[in-house]
Amino acid sequence: MADDRFHVYDTTLRDGAQQEGLNLTVADKLAIARHLDGLGVGFIEGGWPGANPKDTEFFRRARTELDLKHAQLAAFGATRRAGVKAADDPLVAALRESGAPVVTLVAKSHDRHVELALRTTLEENLAMIRDTVSHLRAEGQRVFLDAEHFFDGYKSNPAYALEVVRTAAEAGADVIALCDTNGGMLPDELAEVVLAAVATSARVGIHCHDDTGCAVANTLAAVKAGATHVQGCANGYGERSGNANLFTVVANLQLKRGFDLVPQEALADMTRIAHAITEVTNVTPNSHQPYVGVSAFAHKAGLHASAIKVDPNLYQHIDPAQVGNDMRMLVSDMAGRASVELKGRELGYELDATESRELVEKVKELEARGYTFEAADASFELLLKDTLNGERRRHFTVESWRAIVERRPTGEVVSEATVKVHAKGERIVATGEGNGPVNALDRALRQALERLYPELAALELTDFKVRILEGTHGSDAITRVLITSSDGKGEWATMGVAENVIEASWQALEEAVTYGLLRAGRECDSL
Amino acid sequence: MADDRFHVYDTTLRDGAQQEGLNLTVADKLAIARHLDGLGVGFIEGGWPGANPKDTEFFRRARTELDLKHAQLAAFGATRRAGVKAADDPLVAALRESGAPVVTLVAKSHDRHVELALRTTLEENLAMIRDTVSHLRAEGQRVFLDAEHFFDGYKSNPAYALEVVRTAAEAGADVIALCDTNGGMLPDELAEVVLAAVATSARVGIHCHDDTGCAVANTLAAVKAGATHVQGCANGYGERSGNANLFTVVANLQLKRGFDLVPQEALADMTRIAHAITEVTNVTPNSHQPYVGVSAFAHKAGLHASAIKVDPNLYQHIDPAQVGNDMRMLVSDMAGRASVELKGRELGYELDATESRELVEKVKELEARGYTFEAADASFELLLKDTLNGERRRHFTVESWRAIVERRPTGEVVSEATVKVHAKGERIVATGEGNGPVNALDRALRQALERLYPELAALELTDFKVRILEGTHGSDAITRVLITSSDGKGEWATMGVAENVIEASWQALEEAVTYGLLRAGRECDSL
Repeated sequence: MADDRFHVYDTTLRDGAQQEGLNLTVADKLAIARHLDGLGVGFIEGGWPGANPKDTEFFRRARTELDLKHAQLAAFGATRRAGVKAADDPLVAALRESGAPVVTLVAKSHDRHVELALRTTLEENLAMIRDTVSHLRAEGQRVFLDAEHFFDGYKSNPAYALEVVRTAAEAGADVIALCDTNGGMLPDELAEVVLAAVATSARVGIHCHDDTGCAVANTLAAVKAGATHVQGCANGYGERSGNANLFTVVANLQLKRGFDLVPQEALADMTRIAHAITEVTNVTPNSHQPYVGVSAFAHKAGLHASAIKVDPNLYQHIDPAQVGNDMRMLVSDMAGRASVELKGRELGYELDATESRELVEKVKELEARGYTFEAADASFELLLKDTLNGERRRHFTVESWRAIVERRPTGEVVSEATVKVHAKGERIVATGEGNGPVNALDRALRQALERLYPELAALELTDFKVRILEGTHGSDAITRVLITSSDGKGEWATMGVAENVIEASWQALEEAVTYGLLRAGRECDSL
Repeated sequence: MADDRFHVYDTTLRDGAQQEGLNLTVADKLAIARHLDGLGVGFIEGGWPGANPKDTEFFRRARTELDLKHAQLAAFGATRRAGVKAADDPLVAALRESGAPVVTLVAKSHDRHVELALRTTLEENLAMIRDTVSHLRAEGQRVFLDAEHFFDGYKSNPAYALEVVRTAAEAGADVIALCDTNGGMLPDELAEVVLAAVATSARVGIHCHDDTGCAVANTLAAVKAGATHVQGCANGYGERSGNANLFTVVANLQLKRGFDLVPQEALADMTRIAHAITEVTNVTPNSHQPYVGVSAFAHKAGLHASAIKVDPNLYQHIDPAQVGNDMRMLVSDMAGRASVELKGRELGYELDATESRELVEKVKELEARGYTFEAADASFELLLKDTLNGERRRHFTVESWRAIVERRPTGEVVSEATVKVHAKGERIVATGEGNGPVNALDRALRQALERLYPELAALELTDFKVRILEGTHGSDAITRVLITSSDGKGEWATMGVAENVIEASWQALEEAVTYGLLRAGRECDSL
């Protein structure tokens, strides 16, 4: 459990999900929550149960499927409606029943919003806050309050905005997070308003958006003014220009301001976590992202090259290893030797210097072509084994395959695939049908091999991800396919890269089956 | 000519070009300079003549090919080498001969850099600054000085760092730009150092990088501390995490701090200019970019939509028209009737209450099945038209299609598709080949229709995105495909959802062609 004196509060699953083009399934949300917990954040806002069936399901599944080590879940919701009791409001009931230890209530703190958007009186809005906070507290939940449009509200009516803070605190809210909801603030002016809120003696938090490009700086300014709770989103996700990037905020506070927010070894895993989350969201990673972007410590040689050799710290504001990133001198230098060696050791292989150099070269060359071994452990292990063996070994070779997808005049869509493979000295031809070309190819391949390798019957595709990489002419672009497979005992990920989505899928399938057979104790043959 | 009291100094063509993956030709640089001049910046740093043949050529061609209205060109270069006279240094000569009215000299201001990277004495470094500045001044050029690593230098040896500022100013440099070269500063500490430099009575400028996510805020903090010259790059281009985004800096200062930096009508053209520059650099535009990003004023939350109808300014920090951007409503399952109505109005349709209710029902039902209209405006508009027409109207109907992907024993992968469609009373069968099944289907469909609709020749797929939704059994999951198409005049996005990735792609293709024909003025037939 994180220290309660300073809160790192993530709202990726609620406010971050407001980002254009970002649509998270419940399974995605659970996966992201696990990554955030791995980073050591204190609170994970999971969504708005009751308002949205998907979020209700998230909290239901979280009870059995999430085993959080550091973080506590927070359910987001609104204060009760005007004119009803909190105890009788079904939306408040949904928050109570979410099972979340924390409820974060959003409340209006801008007088004009109360009148124009909420259409109630300023006094009733205060009563709604008082009543909802104290009701949830009495029912045993911890309550935070998001004071919406606080800064514009303070400009419009400072006394009322501060009255909202006081009312919530007196009713039992532990934190009043001041929200720059439209993101229009600049740090100096924001800090003055935070000081005024801190002077009420309530515990103050901060929630910023990046509409002026100052979300991170605004958050830091609020902390300097006395806020002890920072909200933000993984990778700066969020509506419009995004929320404050929680990773940047944490790295700045911990590495430059001496705060002890997350475990040091978790901070050193931040780059991997940031990228793992982009694999879930399927949002292209921002290579320029401070601290964790692929380019964040990349130097175009020239003027700096010789000096960097003398002392890299002359040209870097931190040691990139502190956030799990690497300095890069040349283009497409994704993997360093150290991380390849570490990864090999993690998988149980000791590489000597020549082997690890050779493996790094292969990884670099393949990553330059679009492969990403970070997300495909099993493909990396196959490459590592080939390197150690000094040759490529497989259980089978492929002569050819063909996939046909057809929409018939009846409207029915059918997929069929044929594969021709060689294994244990035999040539085998097999055909499979499926609900799509990849499914059909998967069935055909397993059909072909199952007589020789009966353990393939237990093998199953559990996830399939497609990412289109660059290319300015749509279908001319490179396609990367990631496949997760299971044998009932464990899961593994493989990858394929090709112009053609079906060819990329096939490569990933072939490696998935190869790795599955190795797991089952079947050694490869020399080809 | 811009007012000299406050400088907006762009370094896209020099420091911005250090961005990984950014490679500008001379023609690109000239084109970007014209765009920046259109925005009304005061200075455009064109490159380093003498150090780089491309930059030498840029300054040569600029004399005849650039007709700048507002901006002056600056040539970037270093102080003379140790132990030679400025007048005898060929690199200084190249600056003199560039024809640029301004020279910006980079000089070391960090004692350790002088010793370790420059390998000379602290005194000789000051002499190099004094000599080079006064030589160029005497030859008739205006001189600015970039004090490299100023902030780390100040931490290491404040007296020496300030001595660099004084020496340059006394030798005749008009501005000493303090550079946070490794980008590690946070605003409060940076402001203190700027105050110390301003106290020397030299004119101070600021040059920031975004390694802490604070480049814009650092620039603003420096201005508040007395800097009257801001450096930055278009769209925040630059090495590592990028330079300060000059567009964000200008918009913040002009719209929120009352500075009069660029003509109001130029500011109202900023969004177009920002995107025009991405066309030259071929860097994917950052949709989240403050002020000018496509998403910068896009609203998704249903909660907000009803209030936005009452008063859009309640939810926007500025009027987007001030920077030439637009508010956009995103239709999503979080949205209710208000956002569908607003979206309809944005597209030019007035929906009555019955129609908008019907449309909301359709949107909700389709989004529950995996569609996401926020990302596919054109698919939304087709749905809206069908609703208004009370029936589905199209230019063609599809009898059947078939796609075949094959890897031959030679290793070659080929894709071929056949479509059978009916249009204008004819039945047409056509076949296409492509580098993947979707490309082949696209070609086959256009081949089938081009005789009847020749305008389809101009239609092109420009982006293709695949997302696998939920499903715990890999290829059994639902697939959503988003396609962006272009007719050379504009772009539109369509969507398809199906278990089968090829079927989903086909739906998106069919809508892409339908929408393209509507754009070309071809009315649909009742089916």
